[in-house]
Amino acid sequence: MCDHGLIKTIHGHQSHLGWDNANTPVMQVTPGTTVSFECNDSSGGHFTAASTLESVASMPFDRINPVTGPVFVDGAEPGDILAITIEEFTPSGFGWTANIPGFGLLSDQFTEPALALWHYDTQTMTPAAFGKHARIPLKPFAGTLGVAPAAPGLHSIVPPRRVGGNLDVRDIAAGCTLYLPVEVAGALFSIGDTHAAQGDGEVCGTALESAMDVTLTLNLIKQTPLAMPRFSTPGPVTRHLDGAGYEVFTGIGSDLMTGARQALEGAIEWLIKTRNMPAEQAYMLCSVCGDLRISEIVDQPNWVVSFYVPRIVFE
Amino acid sequence: MCDHGLIKTIHGHQSHLGWDNANTPVMQVTPGTTVSFECNDSSGGHFTAASTLESVASMPFDRINPVTGPVFVDGAEPGDILAITIEEFTPSGFGWTANIPGFGLLSDQFTEPALALWHYDTQTMTPAAFGKHARIPLKPFAGTLGVAPAAPGLHSIVPPRRVGGNLDVRDIAAGCTLYLPVEVAGALFSIGDTHAAQGDGEVCGTALESAMDVTLTLNLIKQTPLAMPRFSTPGPVTRHLDGAGYEVFTGIGSDLMTGARQALEGAIEWLIKTRNMPAEQAYMLCSVCGDLRISEIVDQPNWVVSFYVPRIVFE
Repeated sequence: MCDHGLIKTIHGHQSHLGWDNANTPVMQVTPGTTVSFECNDSSGGHFTAASTLESVASMPFDRINPVTGPVFVDGAEPGDILAITIEEFTPSGFGWTANIPGFGLLSDQFTEPALALWHYDTQTMTPAAFGKHARIPLKPFAGTLGVAPAAPGLHSIVPPRRVGGNLDVRDIAAGCTLYLPVEVAGALFSIGDTHAAQGDGEVCGTALESAMDVTLTLNLIKQTPLAMPRFSTPGPVTRHLDGAGYEVFTGIGSDLMTGARQALEGAIEWLIKTRNMPAEQAYMLCSVCGDLRISEIVDQPNWVVSFYVPRIVFE
Repeated sequence: MCDHGLIKTIHGHQSHLGWDNANTPVMQVTPGTTVSFECNDSSGGHFTAASTLESVASMPFDRINPVTGPVFVDGAEPGDILAITIEEFTPSGFGWTANIPGFGLLSDQFTEPALALWHYDTQTMTPAAFGKHARIPLKPFAGTLGVAPAAPGLHSIVPPRRVGGNLDVRDIAAGCTLYLPVEVAGALFSIGDTHAAQGDGEVCGTALESAMDVTLTLNLIKQTPLAMPRFSTPGPVTRHLDGAGYEVFTGIGSDLMTGARQALEGAIEWLIKTRNMPAEQAYMLCSVCGDLRISEIVDQPNWVVSFYVPRIVFE
């Protein structure tokens, strides 16, 4: 680790797989410290510009989603809140999106691997080409931000939990502050799984996965109850997507999961018919830019889940 | 019924309760016709500026959510799509929001009736005062738009279904086109349950309920499959809310409904603590302006549901 002026840097090899409060901290900081994290992509560098469809099958599942850290925050104790203010992203310009069999909202229907590779301009951050099908506005964020759980042992990196982790919340972008409940001394914060773009839901199971550096500031709020993670955004969250309006598809019924699947199926069917896209390309497109929303959850016994496809990606 | 130039008007007394394909049409139109509907509020005019908390208990549940119509569209047949383009709303300026015991996402926790009355300026449509607590940006829409189901008999007005009905989708506002699958000859379109404001989810069970006139154009798309309702928005959908950013609360776990409840509970707790609001006021505020979104639905076995409280309502 090294210092650039006041900012401390943690390198990408200083990473771990899974959450364990016995992990040795790679850095110790006082509250208020700004730290730059080199984040690997969620494949740990497996995918490159030379990757092919076969690379999906050879993904090292025992090494996915490495997170950089953990950082020990002086004075952090169980019952505190760790406040993480996201300052800046330095994206790499390369990324990938895949349909990984067994993973994703429609994994029963999309059983074959699929892969898209992305190259985007890190200076202009103009929308990135998704083949010839669309251009996706970029909004970098880290999919995984978490602190160590109190429960001992190694916990999978895949599911998010009360202490954060693989939240995959698109809107925790630059300028946001994320609040996580601290469960162990020092909090033990780690971050990774950076994305250059994603829709709410991350429906195919992957986003525009892309290695990048993340600069953030760690602060402490002493002894304040927090049941679940929360965050604050400094401004609008979807203006990079909403300018040209949306095509919206609904799912209606007494189960929100079924409704979400119906809504997504409607979107994919529309993309196939009107945009002439192969089904797996439509599925991946939905994952990097389409949003799942719960339109109503009170008109018993049927709820409405809606999937929003932003038309700007076709302009 | 009467004509204003080319626009036909259906009056508010020409309404029905529940969906039944045996209902007698109140108007017959050719595709392409623009119709103005006088819509009652969802209480059928029960609430007035003189209403008190006792008015919630005396709500006539057998007469709620009257819809204006039905309209018979010439040439509509099962297998067609009815395309409804929302042209304009003429709001009344009065509205109400209630917590109705037994109804709403947290009905187990909010067991006592609550009522808020609203007066808003129909000329300026400036944000409406929610007591001394907040000012809510307005965006009128109809909560209920539907066509008659093929299945015979009377079907409750409360749940939405494949043929639409009580969708309560906030974003089906002026300029949008809603597409509904036709199941019976003539389609038999009706509309009501107009709202001056609502958040995605309509979490307390009611929105800013408000009588208004709705002008829309009915078109037909012949013999085109449509599994579930869909709609198209001409532009952004949340810019009336997003300008000052959001406070966002998450629910994390393997059940989307539980996650939605957790996220809402986080928002209500925050409103109570930081905005000094009584719990039932916080609940109703969330219903008229807060949005439920599914942030991720693939990191098995835990999904993230987020509730977005727009800070602009406090500015």
